[in-house]
Amino acid sequence: MSDDPFVPTPADRFSFGLWTVGWQAQDVFGSASRPALDPVETVHRLAELGAYGVSFHDDDLIPFGSDETVRDKVVARFREALDTTGLVVSMATTNLFGHPVFKDGAFTANDRAVRRYALQKVLRNIDLAAELGAPTYVLWGGREGAESGAGKQMRAALDRYREAINAICAYIRQQGYDIRLAIEPKPNEPRGDILLPTIGHALALISTLDEPSRVGLNPEVGHEEMAGLNFAHGIAQALWHGKLFHIDLNGQHGPRFDQDLRFGAGNLRGAFWTVDTLENSSGYPTAYAGPRHFDYKPPRTEDAVGVWGTAAACMRNYLILREKVRTFRDDPEVSAALAAARVDELSVPTLLPGETLEQLRAEQIDIEAVAARGMAFERLDQLAMEHLLGIRG
Amino acid sequence: MSDDPFVPTPADRFSFGLWTVGWQAQDVFGSASRPALDPVETVHRLAELGAYGVSFHDDDLIPFGSDETVRDKVVARFREALDTTGLVVSMATTNLFGHPVFKDGAFTANDRAVRRYALQKVLRNIDLAAELGAPTYVLWGGREGAESGAGKQMRAALDRYREAINAICAYIRQQGYDIRLAIEPKPNEPRGDILLPTIGHALALISTLDEPSRVGLNPEVGHEEMAGLNFAHGIAQALWHGKLFHIDLNGQHGPRFDQDLRFGAGNLRGAFWTVDTLENSSGYPTAYAGPRHFDYKPPRTEDAVGVWGTAAACMRNYLILREKVRTFRDDPEVSAALAAARVDELSVPTLLPGETLEQLRAEQIDIEAVAARGMAFERLDQLAMEHLLGIRG
Amino acid sequence: MSDDPFVPTPADRFSFGLWTVGWQAQDVFGSASRPALDPVETVHRLAELGAYGVSFHDDDLIPFGSDETVRDKVVARFREALDTTGLVVSMATTNLFGHPVFKDGAFTANDRAVRRYALQKVLRNIDLAAELGAPTYVLWGGREGAESGAGKQMRAALDRYREAINAICAYIRQQGYDIRLAIEPKPNEPRGDILLPTIGHALALISTLDEPSRVGLNPEVGHEEMAGLNFAHGIAQALWHGKLFHIDLNGQHGPRFDQDLRFGAGNLRGAFWTVDTLENSSGYPTAYAGPRHFDYKPPRTEDAVGVWGTAAACMRNYLILREKVRTFRDDPEVSAALAAARVDELSVPTLLPGETLEQLRAEQIDIEAVAARGMAFERLDQLAMEHLLGIRG
Amino acid sequence: MSDDPFVPTPADRFSFGLWTVGWQAQDVFGSASRPALDPVETVHRLAELGAYGVSFHDDDLIPFGSDETVRDKVVARFREALDTTGLVVSMATTNLFGHPVFKDGAFTANDRAVRRYALQKVLRNIDLAAELGAPTYVLWGGREGAESGAGKQMRAALDRYREAINAICAYIRQQGYDIRLAIEPKPNEPRGDILLPTIGHALALISTLDEPSRVGLNPEVGHEEMAGLNFAHGIAQALWHGKLFHIDLNGQHGPRFDQDLRFGAGNLRGAFWTVDTLENSSGYPTAYAGPRHFDYKPPRTEDAVGVWGTAAACMRNYLILREKVRTFRDDPEVSAALAAARVDELSVPTLLPGETLEQLRAEQIDIEAVAARGMAFERLDQLAMEHLLGIRG
Repeated sequence: MSDDPFVPTPADRFSFGLWTVGWQAQDVFGSASRPALDPVETVHRLAELGAYGVSFHDDDLIPFGSDETVRDKVVARFREALDTTGLVVSMATTNLFGHPVFKDGAFTANDRAVRRYALQKVLRNIDLAAELGAPTYVLWGGREGAESGAGKQMRAALDRYREAINAICAYIRQQGYDIRLAIEPKPNEPRGDILLPTIGHALALISTLDEPSRVGLNPEVGHEEMAGLNFAHGIAQALWHGKLFHIDLNGQHGPRFDQDLRFGAGNLRGAFWTVDTLENSSGYPTAYAGPRHFDYKPPRTEDAVGVWGTAAACMRNYLILREKVRTFRDDPEVSAALAAARVDELSVPTLLPGETLEQLRAEQIDIEAVAARGMAFERLDQLAMEHLLGIRG
Repeated sequence: MSDDPFVPTPADRFSFGLWTVGWQAQDVFGSASRPALDPVETVHRLAELGAYGVSFHDDDLIPFGSDETVRDKVVARFREALDTTGLVVSMATTNLFGHPVFKDGAFTANDRAVRRYALQKVLRNIDLAAELGAPTYVLWGGREGAESGAGKQMRAALDRYREAINAICAYIRQQGYDIRLAIEPKPNEPRGDILLPTIGHALALISTLDEPSRVGLNPEVGHEEMAGLNFAHGIAQALWHGKLFHIDLNGQHGPRFDQDLRFGAGNLRGAFWTVDTLENSSGYPTAYAGPRHFDYKPPRTEDAVGVWGTAAACMRNYLILREKVRTFRDDPEVSAALAAARVDELSVPTLLPGETLEQLRAEQIDIEAVAARGMAFERLDQLAMEHLLGIRG
Repeated sequence: MSDDPFVPTPADRFSFGLWTVGWQAQDVFGSASRPALDPVETVHRLAELGAYGVSFHDDDLIPFGSDETVRDKVVARFREALDTTGLVVSMATTNLFGHPVFKDGAFTANDRAVRRYALQKVLRNIDLAAELGAPTYVLWGGREGAESGAGKQMRAALDRYREAINAICAYIRQQGYDIRLAIEPKPNEPRGDILLPTIGHALALISTLDEPSRVGLNPEVGHEEMAGLNFAHGIAQALWHGKLFHIDLNGQHGPRFDQDLRFGAGNLRGAFWTVDTLENSSGYPTAYAGPRHFDYKPPRTEDAVGVWGTAAACMRNYLILREKVRTFRDDPEVSAALAAARVDELSVPTLLPGETLEQLRAEQIDIEAVAARGMAFERLDQLAMEHLLGIRG
Repeated sequence: MSDDPFVPTPADRFSFGLWTVGWQAQDVFGSASRPALDPVETVHRLAELGAYGVSFHDDDLIPFGSDETVRDKVVARFREALDTTGLVVSMATTNLFGHPVFKDGAFTANDRAVRRYALQKVLRNIDLAAELGAPTYVLWGGREGAESGAGKQMRAALDRYREAINAICAYIRQQGYDIRLAIEPKPNEPRGDILLPTIGHALALISTLDEPSRVGLNPEVGHEEMAGLNFAHGIAQALWHGKLFHIDLNGQHGPRFDQDLRFGAGNLRGAFWTVDTLENSSGYPTAYAGPRHFDYKPPRTEDAVGVWGTAAACMRNYLILREKVRTFRDDPEVSAALAAARVDELSVPTLLPGETLEQLRAEQIDIEAVAARGMAFERLDQLAMEHLLGIRG
């Protein structure tokens, strides 16, 4: 084992949601196939596997409807497990989708009482997040949406979404917490169409907030791929806007139901570029500084042994891909191929410093000669694939 | 004919791209099935059909590579047709995708010479747009993208995209033109993945521009639906940001190749909500004030008679849907159903004026009672469907 | 009401699964939002709404694990409700997906004990189906599949699938029951990839069975549309093979999770062609003779009133579309447009009776002249759309 | 180079269509970016790269409309190149989609003259296929389909499809050619919906032919993946029916336009299972005996160097994956994991030899105990992934 280069340590900053390994595998078509997991056991097991952090929805940790006494006891036990293992709470979030009260959403439910309750639920749990030291608080609006056209006034829905996020920011500011928010986009499921369906839509909303600097994104691989979008491109744009605060790594096979496969499964080549983007984000306005967080569901076929195996595999696959990305970027043939594809030339501004547009317009460009130049992208992509396949590197 | 309520007039503000009815039906698998159309004929035919405006790519009007003499002659003939018919140029745009020089994109081509040429081509045609009175200039970056991961540095690509748009804005400002830009997003095809793949991603980019108020969107029905996204939701968010400058109406059958069907074909229920959103946009920060522009391709099976029939049908379908939207919104049963679904309640802020978050937190909410309330969305959607089907209204 | 032409009667042969209106709206992300429905109440309510039949999974009617006494009591009560209302059992099926024992499938589970149990469960319920007079027994293999490549040997899986269906046919034959089987294809969800993913794959399997004439299909609108396939085309091919034994009508928005919307919602134009194909199936080798069966899920937002509203709406939408199909087919302009599109010419064999291929090869065909003929499909489609929209007919 | 284990030789039986490396990169949005390739050059280049065979559409080899003299000259030159290089013609096919005469299809065009012309074109080229020794003749009905519902009568279309294939079989039989037909399914593009959209639909049609044993399939990776289907599952079912006659290997990113990427690009994990299925097909009724044929399009960004690089890469990627499949299947840990997942148990019939269904019904099965067993699929899939990644093996 000691010579296995793909054994995670806390320095790798891997984290898992309690709800991932703890998923009991209930779905639309069937009941649970696995017993409930004690969060304290999860903390210990994750620590043994080499994880760095854990994340949770309020209801993952504290059973829905618990009174304060129960809550305190649960939190104390959980904190003790964290202290014992050294695991950190790397993120917290609110379950605003499980209880039927949220059947029409939370922040954008037509029913104002639901919206008020949702906000209460978030604020209460923000306190816990602060208490447990979570630096990031995720907002996944899984039920904010509609199955049909007339029932949801989009203008008002976006107003309410903004109102809620502004209120949460205000609360964090008032309490003096050191917490940032991260919106998690998703195009559909469980609602027919969900608000803020992609990274782009959420970035756009953020630009209209009272305190935009406190709010960024928590993109999930599968959510963007369900819309057929390129995940690495998506997080690259988020990084370019300085908004990649957190990430949900998993696997998906394109437009279909939300598969939440372990990281590496599904679109493997996409996973390579995702890791490349994360590991080489230092050139962006703000490099990615969050954990490598897995949000996946061990398939319903697996028992407890299988579940912990998938958790280990998520981390292992990340480490394998990280190593491959490194050898790819260090390979002199890759450097030559990047040069042949003129990749760096894109960093050269199109206009000269001080050049006027009139000057540009006067330039003679031999477009037939330019058009004849091949871009040599396939050679480059083949090199990447060979690093991925372990043929090079 | 006089009693047909669905005959378009210029007051309806319908417009068409020269490239729509003029598409010769060449595709990846086959050669042209129709002869070229003279733009002057198109202007006359569109006017006869009741259209208000026409739009064009530079190369649609002026054959690629024409010298100034040819160009002037072509423009003079075209202008004469406009003057004769009263048709306006409602939008202009640049072909930055047809010539092989753009095989790796235009504003974000790795090859700087391509970027410079692309910018030249835009500026030259912006002059023509201004000369012909086009209020909106569309930027569709159809080849801005990649088939593979290493060949395009996303950070640099977004920098260059922004640089180009900033440069175009600067040029328009310098020339004193009264022109606004509209970015047209698309997720893929002809590139494997295109930059700014959805409405959201383009809105986000705009928020970073030098002159964001000059730049908005030109969303296309099929482009969003290729990503499985709800088009009415998308343009609603664009309206909410004050950024719906122009629109491309057509039809599509979900994630597959870009079908560019006539408006109404494909997702008919989606078309109803699209028209509802456009026609009832007055509640948004900026109501939609642009033309109803069709960007579609008459199928390769059609001859000239079929082509003009599809152009008429696009307008007719819009008028039919507009009427249905009106009867839907005027129906007292719909009003009752909207109330039952508590649609207007979403316009009531979640927090009372002056209410503190502490006060909110103290409120007792009977969530089981709230959860038990049905939302009555299906009744509402059924009413909409019956208006669409002509059973009501 | 009496002048409402869209009120269903048993003569319209509408049927519903107990699990449709009875869905409690539990999904992957949340718990039930509605209480359980008593199947006897369902029978009465469906009868009042004008339905003709009801269908069920064994576990919908008889709680899983019930002993014989409970079973008999339940069946007696159910039969009494049927007798009272006149509703028939138009189809029965087995739940081979809900219990965790089926987590790797039923007929194709790797675990032989599961396969044996699955077969037991089917045979037991076939007796009940026969007892209650169900003419059709559906096989939906929702968990027959895999999330990954090595765990399921496809060759063996298809062998076992065939073995199970052959065994069920043998049992029906031995018992002398007048029951036919109908396979229901689905591409994915809840498994990553499901065996027999489309109408075509199931038709192919049937051709290899011991008793192919006893087995046909139960295609579902949404299942084919999740693969981006044209449902009307699919059932047309099933009819062409004489294999459309039953049908599951509902609504879907293309490739994404299984939405199970009420019939008419989702792809409305597709629903029109589906009804057209069903209602005009007499030209096929075997016309469709089964019920118009709805397999849908009232959205989680709806309460009991909403649920029954959706059941009524499914039938109403079918009747509306049936009427529109009729007016479309009766419209003289449609006849003219069909002629212009040379639709009937496709029924003329390509080769003359007795013509040799050598003779064909010698024929001179002026392909440029042929190529120049427009197909006039758009005109035809526009007429269909106008009937659908209620502008004609 | 001599120690590079991934250098193809003719023994590997790789083949390419003339239209692949010869694609000039014209698409819907742009004109050709590469000059035409001489088929003779292609033969020589492919031979140098280590290919075994070449395939062609009639029009790829003999310019459309050539007279007999030109034809004979072209064929003689081509044959000489084959003789010189030792390359074989591994497959031939007809272009029934490029010329506008085929705009509504070929065998199922409404216009009977088109159908007759299509049949002529096939028969003429079947002679050439026989002359050049092609064992397989592919039928891709790319334009057999419709964009809308009324214009194509499905019943008649399937009748005509069958008639055409029966006629071609008859011709081959009459001429005494040793040629088998292979149908290539595709769901859409260039038509809105294509007939025989998947492997399953084509298998079903074959079962109704006059001479079903002469007709099998030519499935294409991207075509099935455009419908979100699992390609390895698809070809496994084709093998199970004894119908995998030929194959088109390439890459695709799920439901979107037809990308035709080089083999290995797109869904890499899918490619691994595809190679596994092909290389280990000996357990099926008929093992795969055809060439490893690539049907892809070098991206428009590539020049001639890039084009030949992609051809080499297709073969190289296949060889790499073949080696990985071998190490995966030989790995003792994989054997153990297969046993743990009870994969072989699926080959054990569900019913004992001679067992009656009554006996089965009487068996007591402890389903809770059975349900509790984990399937250990994730462990197995992780092992496969690690072989793919070169971490094992």
